[in-house]
Amino acid sequence: MRILIVNPNTTAAMTEKIGRAARAAAAVGTEIIAVNPPDGPVSIEGYYDEAFSVPGLLAEIAKGDISGVSAHIIACFDDTGLEAARCISPVPVIGIGEAAFHLASMLGHRFSVVTTLSRSIAAIENNLLKYGLAGRCAKVRACEVPVLSLDDPASDAAARIGAEIELAKQEDRAEAIVLGCAGMADLAARLSQRHGLPVLDGVASAVKLAEAFGALGLKTSKIGAYAPPRPKPYLGSVASFSPR
Amino acid sequence: MRILIVNPNTTAAMTEKIGRAARAAAAVGTEIIAVNPPDGPVSIEGYYDEAFSVPGLLAEIAKGDISGVSAHIIACFDDTGLEAARCISPVPVIGIGEAAFHLASMLGHRFSVVTTLSRSIAAIENNLLKYGLAGRCAKVRACEVPVLSLDDPASDAAARIGAEIELAKQEDRAEAIVLGCAGMADLAARLSQRHGLPVLDGVASAVKLAEAFGALGLKTSKIGAYAPPRPKPYLGSVASFSPR
Amino acid sequence: MRILIVNPNTTAAMTEKIGRAARAAAAVGTEIIAVNPPDGPVSIEGYYDEAFSVPGLLAEIAKGDISGVSAHIIACFDDTGLEAARCISPVPVIGIGEAAFHLASMLGHRFSVVTTLSRSIAAIENNLLKYGLAGRCAKVRACEVPVLSLDDPASDAAARIGAEIELAKQEDRAEAIVLGCAGMADLAARLSQRHGLPVLDGVASAVKLAEAFGALGLKTSKIGAYAPPRPKPYLGSVASFSPR
Amino acid sequence: MRILIVNPNTTAAMTEKIGRAARAAAAVGTEIIAVNPPDGPVSIEGYYDEAFSVPGLLAEIAKGDISGVSAHIIACFDDTGLEAARCISPVPVIGIGEAAFHLASMLGHRFSVVTTLSRSIAAIENNLLKYGLAGRCAKVRACEVPVLSLDDPASDAAARIGAEIELAKQEDRAEAIVLGCAGMADLAARLSQRHGLPVLDGVASAVKLAEAFGALGLKTSKIGAYAPPRPKPYLGSVASFSPR
Amino acid sequence: MRILIVNPNTTAAMTEKIGRAARAAAAVGTEIIAVNPPDGPVSIEGYYDEAFSVPGLLAEIAKGDISGVSAHIIACFDDTGLEAARCISPVPVIGIGEAAFHLASMLGHRFSVVTTLSRSIAAIENNLLKYGLAGRCAKVRACEVPVLSLDDPASDAAARIGAEIELAKQEDRAEAIVLGCAGMADLAARLSQRHGLPVLDGVASAVKLAEAFGALGLKTSKIGAYAPPRPKPYLGSVASFSPR
Amino acid sequence: MRILIVNPNTTAAMTEKIGRAARAAAAVGTEIIAVNPPDGPVSIEGYYDEAFSVPGLLAEIAKGDISGVSAHIIACFDDTGLEAARCISPVPVIGIGEAAFHLASMLGHRFSVVTTLSRSIAAIENNLLKYGLAGRCAKVRACEVPVLSLDDPASDAAARIGAEIELAKQEDRAEAIVLGCAGMADLAARLSQRHGLPVLDGVASAVKLAEAFGALGLKTSKIGAYAPPRPKPYLGSVASFSPR
Repeated sequence: MRILIVNPNTTAAMTEKIGRAARAAAAVGTEIIAVNPPDGPVSIEGYYDEAFSVPGLLAEIAKGDISGVSAHIIACFDDTGLEAARCISPVPVIGIGEAAFHLASMLGHRFSVVTTLSRSIAAIENNLLKYGLAGRCAKVRACEVPVLSLDDPASDAAARIGAEIELAKQEDRAEAIVLGCAGMADLAARLSQRHGLPVLDGVASAVKLAEAFGALGLKTSKIGAYAPPRPKPYLGSVASFSPR
Repeated sequence: MRILIVNPNTTAAMTEKIGRAARAAAAVGTEIIAVNPPDGPVSIEGYYDEAFSVPGLLAEIAKGDISGVSAHIIACFDDTGLEAARCISPVPVIGIGEAAFHLASMLGHRFSVVTTLSRSIAAIENNLLKYGLAGRCAKVRACEVPVLSLDDPASDAAARIGAEIELAKQEDRAEAIVLGCAGMADLAARLSQRHGLPVLDGVASAVKLAEAFGALGLKTSKIGAYAPPRPKPYLGSVASFSPR
Repeated sequence: MRILIVNPNTTAAMTEKIGRAARAAAAVGTEIIAVNPPDGPVSIEGYYDEAFSVPGLLAEIAKGDISGVSAHIIACFDDTGLEAARCISPVPVIGIGEAAFHLASMLGHRFSVVTTLSRSIAAIENNLLKYGLAGRCAKVRACEVPVLSLDDPASDAAARIGAEIELAKQEDRAEAIVLGCAGMADLAARLSQRHGLPVLDGVASAVKLAEAFGALGLKTSKIGAYAPPRPKPYLGSVASFSPR
Repeated sequence: MRILIVNPNTTAAMTEKIGRAARAAAAVGTEIIAVNPPDGPVSIEGYYDEAFSVPGLLAEIAKGDISGVSAHIIACFDDTGLEAARCISPVPVIGIGEAAFHLASMLGHRFSVVTTLSRSIAAIENNLLKYGLAGRCAKVRACEVPVLSLDDPASDAAARIGAEIELAKQEDRAEAIVLGCAGMADLAARLSQRHGLPVLDGVASAVKLAEAFGALGLKTSKIGAYAPPRPKPYLGSVASFSPR
Repeated sequence: MRILIVNPNTTAAMTEKIGRAARAAAAVGTEIIAVNPPDGPVSIEGYYDEAFSVPGLLAEIAKGDISGVSAHIIACFDDTGLEAARCISPVPVIGIGEAAFHLASMLGHRFSVVTTLSRSIAAIENNLLKYGLAGRCAKVRACEVPVLSLDDPASDAAARIGAEIELAKQEDRAEAIVLGCAGMADLAARLSQRHGLPVLDGVASAVKLAEAFGALGLKTSKIGAYAPPRPKPYLGSVASFSPR
Repeated sequence: MRILIVNPNTTAAMTEKIGRAARAAAAVGTEIIAVNPPDGPVSIEGYYDEAFSVPGLLAEIAKGDISGVSAHIIACFDDTGLEAARCISPVPVIGIGEAAFHLASMLGHRFSVVTTLSRSIAAIENNLLKYGLAGRCAKVRACEVPVLSLDDPASDAAARIGAEIELAKQEDRAEAIVLGCAGMADLAARLSQRHGLPVLDGVASAVKLAEAFGALGLKTSKIGAYAPPRPKPYLGSVASFSPR
């Protein structure tokens, strides 16, 4: 099966990293297509950046559908544009945030999230509430490293994330950790080893869920919230997105 | 004070209707500026339409800020783009959905919502959960009249909405009704009269809240979820939205 | 329009302070009538004081209705007697607690409350639960200054409240602050300035909401919880309150 | 031990009925003192009646404490004045509503409540939320018989209550029933027999809980919400209630 | 009346201690029969031990029913096997955990639990959620003393529990304490005295509730969750438990 | 990888059916070992049957661990013994109920469950609460066909389940359906086709999740709720289960 994984920001290096993480998680026979839109913010840190990444993201989803992929993954931890993507696509769409939350719920009594910047905490908390899993999350924490600095050795990202994990174990009684950014995908195994509890990366989690839905032939329900958009004119610069 | 009310869809007739409703609610001395973006869907019915209305909406918010308005209102009942708008604007931003929910909570034990199409119910329910007011809402109902047919006499919109109001009184034990679409703004008073309970329109509700925040000098908090976007490049067609 | 604001305790100096705060918030053309009952506790600090303030409060509400006011405000942060007042009055009744909670919900992801004494925390928490907004409140804190000492320089009230606000920012991740006592009405602007986040006073908040309901012609629903009391004899000292 | 049961309305016939129900439930060695205040409404049906029953109720509680009772029961299903009574009394205070809710929670997965008038539903729902037991209650129903008509054969009260019980079994999947008025105390056994599920009366439930607390030497906590009222002047007609 | 109290672990010394605590709480005329199954773990610390105590526990419940007891108590704080026992017994079954939670809810705004080992916290939290009382519990704490060391002077159990109680007062704002292990039954009175707030033991709490249900003639509902098991073969070593 | 799927009842025909369903869902390279304990009830319908299936289930889990499987699945929709199994096994354990709930949450706004008998509804509702997903489930419904009659043509099981699915669509606004019994595993595809919405079977769902955890190297957290049982004697018939 072919899975499209869309990094909704425009930083190609991050798309590559996400693609590598996805391929490392994928089963034999799964083809991962990792893309990012040409238009949009170079990183997504808060609600405003989210807003401008969604049209480009949806364009990639639409292209993926034309090319016949079996499932889509949205590789931003805020699950940016998830519901809109479900409306237009005939195949399942999975957010890396929800993927990690659902899997973590089956590995421990409660999990904590470690994300990048504290400005992103509210959106994550709102998502947890929407998914029903707020009660399973002990706390959403921020390591205060910007998305594009995660790979910068000077950011000391791994150490800062590790410090939050230790606090989560001691103060939150967290039994599992969810890494709250697609850019942390390469850290999960090492942190799990070091801190002695499951550490989940959303990219890998979503790949396995996408494969699961594909194998089971399960698709997004089309009778309610995710019904196909009603045909109508879209004006101006977005006219080409008009649903027909 | 000057209040910008943005209809995030591109139907000018609806913008005019919203403007009239807003002016009818406004205090002496309040100037209402009703606009819609030139680009975007002609109506917002579900998550997909929402996504393509947000960039245009945010552009209008930004223009309003340059022109020095005291508050913004987002005149789509889904409160489309509300959080993103709060991040970029120095002045309060109010969604017509949240406005009506908050006011209705002070007029009865529970309210029901009557919106247009059932595909919009999920987004409204998710908003109620996010705002904390899900427990105050007895039920979100749909009259199954599309947004742009509300004014079409053939749609029998008032009668269908009235039928749902009666069901809400009998089956939901609702004590107040929130009309779930900006395009219903002109119906509130008449329906309230006919059905014998408060019927709230979000446009008028939001105008009074915008005036309230303005008069009290209260502004959106900038220390967390709604901190100004971090400066960063936006690529391609959205480059001009890049926060600086 | 004329708004009756009832301070349900019997301390005239506090009624005057509340009246001043209300007038400062009121629109041109709004007349504020600030009263307190002649009978009752000199301050309201906990459930027992509340109980003995309600009959006097309701008598003032009834008098206000006879004099034809357009809305009532109950100026005790516990929203003492709110539901009972709604049953007898034909016009809207707003509690200063709920007013501040609802407005604060539109300015930040979460707010914290700073009230006077810790014995009042439970009643506030119960109100938040009842209103649906418990999830929007990060924490209810007490500065441990009694109501009638708020104006006593020796109480160092502003400093103690300020200390709690800083804790709320750091420990609760609060993005807005609600001042939890009518006697703190004069501190909001200064504290907001000093601590760099919105600080809401319930008195001013309620005035704007009362004006809003008045302007919109919205009144308390009379078909359920707030139906007029059934006519019946009241015996003894409360006979004159008997509903007819 | 001696238990004071206060009917907070002023209808002596109802107090007698409550006293009989309490004595029927009491253990050998338990003395039941059933009283009602001389001042107040003849029945409590909604928030307004509640407000005027509380001062008289608290006076009876205070007298009971002087006479040395071991526990108090408030025999109004709304648990009127419960928290205030807990503040002034050194011994436990139990509401008949909470008593029945807690016991019913141990007899079935979910219970429904059948109360008198629909105007009382909101207060009961708010109490369930406050106690934490809203999720254990399937539905609060009203038989639409006024409190003082429960004993009037013309009211057909038992039949109407029975009809609601059948609906609760079929529509709510209720496994137990809580009778929502002190005036229904004599019906529980018969209805339980007829409908084949536990039917709980709050008066009897509260008597056993009062005996339990007395026997165990457990008293209301005095370190927070129910701390003794702070000494302060009460003015005018309520001066004698001033805490010292 | 006769009450069977089953200690579901196999440590006879603990059964005796539980029996003593139960008898100390019982009314004159109540006969306490304290037993433990011959088969099962010597203590219950976590989900796995629970699983192996249930069959033995249910056998004791069944024997108690044959001997005609009026109620059963399950004396493990996790309320192990509670629902299954309710299915087979015609008389009420009370767990010591739920008993203490319900009573504590009537003595203070919020309670904290102090249990033995932190591995037991999750099961207690899940029970609180199931009973509806999670919102009434400020925190579940562990003193990290194993069940069978509670009586070992070297464990310093009372001091460790006391330290957690002080933290619960200061950090959780708990107004009452629930002791989270049947083996702590002898400590409640002394800790209550020392720390100045109600400290509840589940064994004594459950005895009074069992007496209450017995006196009121209230029995477990048999129309839903606790309907008698359907007759069917049980194979192998558990064949004798087969419902008929 | 090898996955052990344990049918916790003792009906070999059902184990075979479950095994077939699991193999149909499994990836190439996944070996499914489907077993049932020799001791226990022939079907699990309610809490009592659950209790007697757990020891046998845990014995199978332990044997599976000795044989080196990579994950376990518990093939009873009540997720019987799930937490206990997690304590003893070093590899992930997945319940078919939770598996289906989590996957369904990603395919529609809300799902309804259709189980066998109404006596099983309470346990399923309690699980949904425990997992956090109660808010995502519109309703738990029963088709009133016993487990072992599902394959009996006379039971008309498919028609009865189909009727509940239609009610779920119309009355609950469900967008997806979860089949609430392992014995329904063969019906999902056909019902999905016929009713036009995703219909999920827990067995297939759990197989894909087990494969996911295996591929990602994620294992149950061992630092809290699911820590290995403490070594201690188990007496009598269960002595062999004693943790060491």
